[in-house]
Amino acid sequence: MAETTRKLANGATRIDFATDPSRYRHWKLAVDGEVATLTMDVDEKAGLYEGYELKLNSYDLGVDIELADALQRLRFEHPSVKVILMRSGKPRVFCAGANIRMLAGAAHADKVNFCKFTNETRNGIEDSSEFSGQKTICVVTGSCAGGGYELALAADHIMLVDDGSSTVSLPELPLLAVLPGTGGLTRVTDKRKVRRDHADVFCTTEEGIKGKRAVDWRLVDEIVPNTKLDDVVKQRAQDFTKKSDRPASAKGIALTPLKRTFSDKGIEYSALSVDYNRAGRIATITLRGPDTPPPADAPAMIAFGADFWPLRLARELDDAILDIRTNELELAAIVFKSAGEPEQVLAYDAFLETNKTNWLAREIRLYWKRVLKRLDVTSRSLVAIVEPGSCFAGTLAEIVLAADRSYMLIGQLNGGNLPPAVIALSEANFGAYPMPNGLSRLESRFLDDKASLDAARSKIGEVLDAEAAEEAGLVTFAFDDIDWDDEIRIFLEERTKFSPDSLTGMEANLRFGGPETMESKIFARLTAWQNWIFQRPNAVGEEGALRRYGTGQKAVFDMRRV
Amino acid sequence: MAETTRKLANGATRIDFATDPSRYRHWKLAVDGEVATLTMDVDEKAGLYEGYELKLNSYDLGVDIELADALQRLRFEHPSVKVILMRSGKPRVFCAGANIRMLAGAAHADKVNFCKFTNETRNGIEDSSEFSGQKTICVVTGSCAGGGYELALAADHIMLVDDGSSTVSLPELPLLAVLPGTGGLTRVTDKRKVRRDHADVFCTTEEGIKGKRAVDWRLVDEIVPNTKLDDVVKQRAQDFTKKSDRPASAKGIALTPLKRTFSDKGIEYSALSVDYNRAGRIATITLRGPDTPPPADAPAMIAFGADFWPLRLARELDDAILDIRTNELELAAIVFKSAGEPEQVLAYDAFLETNKTNWLAREIRLYWKRVLKRLDVTSRSLVAIVEPGSCFAGTLAEIVLAADRSYMLIGQLNGGNLPPAVIALSEANFGAYPMPNGLSRLESRFLDDKASLDAARSKIGEVLDAEAAEEAGLVTFAFDDIDWDDEIRIFLEERTKFSPDSLTGMEANLRFGGPETMESKIFARLTAWQNWIFQRPNAVGEEGALRRYGTGQKAVFDMRRV
Repeated sequence: MAETTRKLANGATRIDFATDPSRYRHWKLAVDGEVATLTMDVDEKAGLYEGYELKLNSYDLGVDIELADALQRLRFEHPSVKVILMRSGKPRVFCAGANIRMLAGAAHADKVNFCKFTNETRNGIEDSSEFSGQKTICVVTGSCAGGGYELALAADHIMLVDDGSSTVSLPELPLLAVLPGTGGLTRVTDKRKVRRDHADVFCTTEEGIKGKRAVDWRLVDEIVPNTKLDDVVKQRAQDFTKKSDRPASAKGIALTPLKRTFSDKGIEYSALSVDYNRAGRIATITLRGPDTPPPADAPAMIAFGADFWPLRLARELDDAILDIRTNELELAAIVFKSAGEPEQVLAYDAFLETNKTNWLAREIRLYWKRVLKRLDVTSRSLVAIVEPGSCFAGTLAEIVLAADRSYMLIGQLNGGNLPPAVIALSEANFGAYPMPNGLSRLESRFLDDKASLDAARSKIGEVLDAEAAEEAGLVTFAFDDIDWDDEIRIFLEERTKFSPDSLTGMEANLRFGGPETMESKIFARLTAWQNWIFQRPNAVGEEGALRRYGTGQKAVFDMRRV
Repeated sequence: MAETTRKLANGATRIDFATDPSRYRHWKLAVDGEVATLTMDVDEKAGLYEGYELKLNSYDLGVDIELADALQRLRFEHPSVKVILMRSGKPRVFCAGANIRMLAGAAHADKVNFCKFTNETRNGIEDSSEFSGQKTICVVTGSCAGGGYELALAADHIMLVDDGSSTVSLPELPLLAVLPGTGGLTRVTDKRKVRRDHADVFCTTEEGIKGKRAVDWRLVDEIVPNTKLDDVVKQRAQDFTKKSDRPASAKGIALTPLKRTFSDKGIEYSALSVDYNRAGRIATITLRGPDTPPPADAPAMIAFGADFWPLRLARELDDAILDIRTNELELAAIVFKSAGEPEQVLAYDAFLETNKTNWLAREIRLYWKRVLKRLDVTSRSLVAIVEPGSCFAGTLAEIVLAADRSYMLIGQLNGGNLPPAVIALSEANFGAYPMPNGLSRLESRFLDDKASLDAARSKIGEVLDAEAAEEAGLVTFAFDDIDWDDEIRIFLEERTKFSPDSLTGMEANLRFGGPETMESKIFARLTAWQNWIFQRPNAVGEEGALRRYGTGQKAVFDMRRV
């Protein structure tokens, strides 16, 4: 079932998530005052892997990495942009969706990682609209199919040109025997409130829907005659700028290139180290606290720009998680450690809290929220090791709370001179960083247990030693020097020998107790079904629809319903 | 991957869901006033399929069919039973969970159907506690592993004997590389509120947890010394009878054997026909309305017993759905039709509404709720055809609302003399039959669309013709005589040619817009991940853990994390 990974194009050996507009091959970003235009104009020769061409504005992970970068830059580099127009640079086609040959030849893990990242990017578009005041309008000209329409679904407003041929469609099921799995099925019902039987018709109609029915069924917000398109786009952009609270006059900061060095042993960033233990199948990420106290005020923070410690660390952590997820499939667990002064971390949290109405402080907290969510949906066992000299405080304590398990040392290590391990909470642990299920990590941890949540809240700002942290329910186990090494070694040895698939399934269930949101439904109900289908011979077998697409041969199905 | 279906034992050709206590091989049902005892004492020689023995109180679908029957009889035949004690009839083992050899040799569809039915049965236990006043206490003596503990999780109260050896465990992941997928992972976090990191430790600890830690981690409600067990069980039973509103003095009705005749063409029941069109891969279920008006009062209803039309039809529909689901895997779609007088159906709804505090009326409505939910999670395309002479009114209109699509004829068929098709709503459509997501089917249909929901409510009791029903959003399409046959024929031909897996995934997403509940999470987040794992070589391949269990050979895993 195509379980060998495709070759990356141009001899690349890793997928790199860092890029910048000067290197874009597929998107054009133009800013005009309060309105930015993101034009999709995919270079069909510039696929991420060898072996396919990105025809008809179809996309692969490489196209989406550029989109994610552009959206990130619109947040940080263009605070005055209130509206993003998403458009196609090609005639007669808006976007044909994920490239089918790419999908058909991709290893299962690559399919799953591709969908996960594109989902995160689309969720980010909605997050930007809701929390950062950047509204997106999708101007659909030509055919908008599959993943193309799923991208449109992430926008606040979908315009469809009424030219008799432009359509929206989700043809995955009839054409490929897979699902519109990048949020499509969920957003159709839960966001756009398309009636479920209309959605059934829509998702089984290969040719899509156009014109008035597209509006009546809520698939688009309006249809616009070709002759009036420019005027109406301009008008809508203006309408939506009024819904935005972004600061018209603010100047952005430059997201300068990440400082990082790759080696066989790991990746060295400015505030973060990644160490691979390939034999043990573990990556250790050590987060380093700030070297200096927070700046005096918001202008001083803005002057630091991308070097401001919380932003720098978030970017580095984001990059590290994506790198491990995509390029290091054999690593079973990520072990988080930290080094620094917890009080300094709390001081930065206090600074961000004090300045939370400043656009950059807001963006930085929203970015941390997204990075932590990325961790939540990362299918590796997450372990926090809280040792002497660590700084899991406030925002960094979220890493401990995101972990599947945490171990904390009581007292000092024999012969060590670092200060005993502590954990500290800040206001940021109580709502600034909700998980995909809409709850804070502490609320998820203490599900319907208000007493424990209130007790944790009463400890904001306190420095808790191992026994106090265990008592407060913040760590799984506290051990002293005598048991410490053995307990962790045995746990990791055992953990990394379990079936990776069953760990993925278990962690995806235990991490998300309680309510589900549209976002968490996308990563659960929709994604898990899609992953199942991505394993089924009817889709991915030699005679399956995904493999046979475009070959002229019809797919052959095992007709038993499961 | 073991895709050939196992042979049923004793030369059986179909799995039959109808049974009665005189035929039980695995359970003993004893009623003593307000307390019933259900004793699991599995006959290891009486497996449903050939090729395995049900050792150590392990179970297969046959064991669970008896459990479901016993629970159903406790509801209807024993209205005075307020507490069910669930116990083991074997020394040193409560239940070893689902039989592993059975699972290892089962076809994918059989695994999935097995889990679905056991999930429905466990959900039914909770439904009984919440809505029917029948509380369940699970008395765990000996080891209670995997599906055994998942059964315990469905109870209101779990007692664990504190004898130094009795344990609860979910060893699926370490032993078999699959999930505790019969609600286990979901109930641990969402129902029992086990902290997620504790749950992580519990679900990866093969040997399970006993004694005080089991209580501290909320895995059980209490531990009881062996010497005091009888007294404490008696006391708890008494405590829980006080929480029940079941009528102490009521006499039950007998759930007499179903009247049904099997043939090659289908199944004929008293109020229902199932017709197979195997070439077209369609089952048509025709529901027949009542022949007589509702009885005068509740005692008259009770005198009818199992012959009372709403109960009779519910039992027959339940049996028919289970039969198709399990025994007719190649049928892609269920087409629902009805025949009768809509006014009569509404009269029965009014009767049940008037008598809803009567225990039997309540049970019948709760049963309809469960049957309709069973339909919601049935992985076949559900189609309602609303024709002249049909009676989709009130409770039966739920079938139209449960369908993925519905077609309604405008006017009469050429040459026909039946009255034109109508749909009518009753109070029962607005809350009596919630879906697994907690919403009524109308609320799910009109998600966040209060205007349409209110408009529908304003039409309670009205008889709506096709155009009015379409206008009210109750059916997908209304066609007149000219287009009718072609539209339906073309739709069904196309539908039954799609990949069955992609239809399963699509329908499982589109049917459940909006919120998720613990129950819907079990059928979505948990089940979909489990089904994925049930396809993965690490579990079901030749070298996978499920296949190699008990062979003395260790499983070999592909260690890439997906």
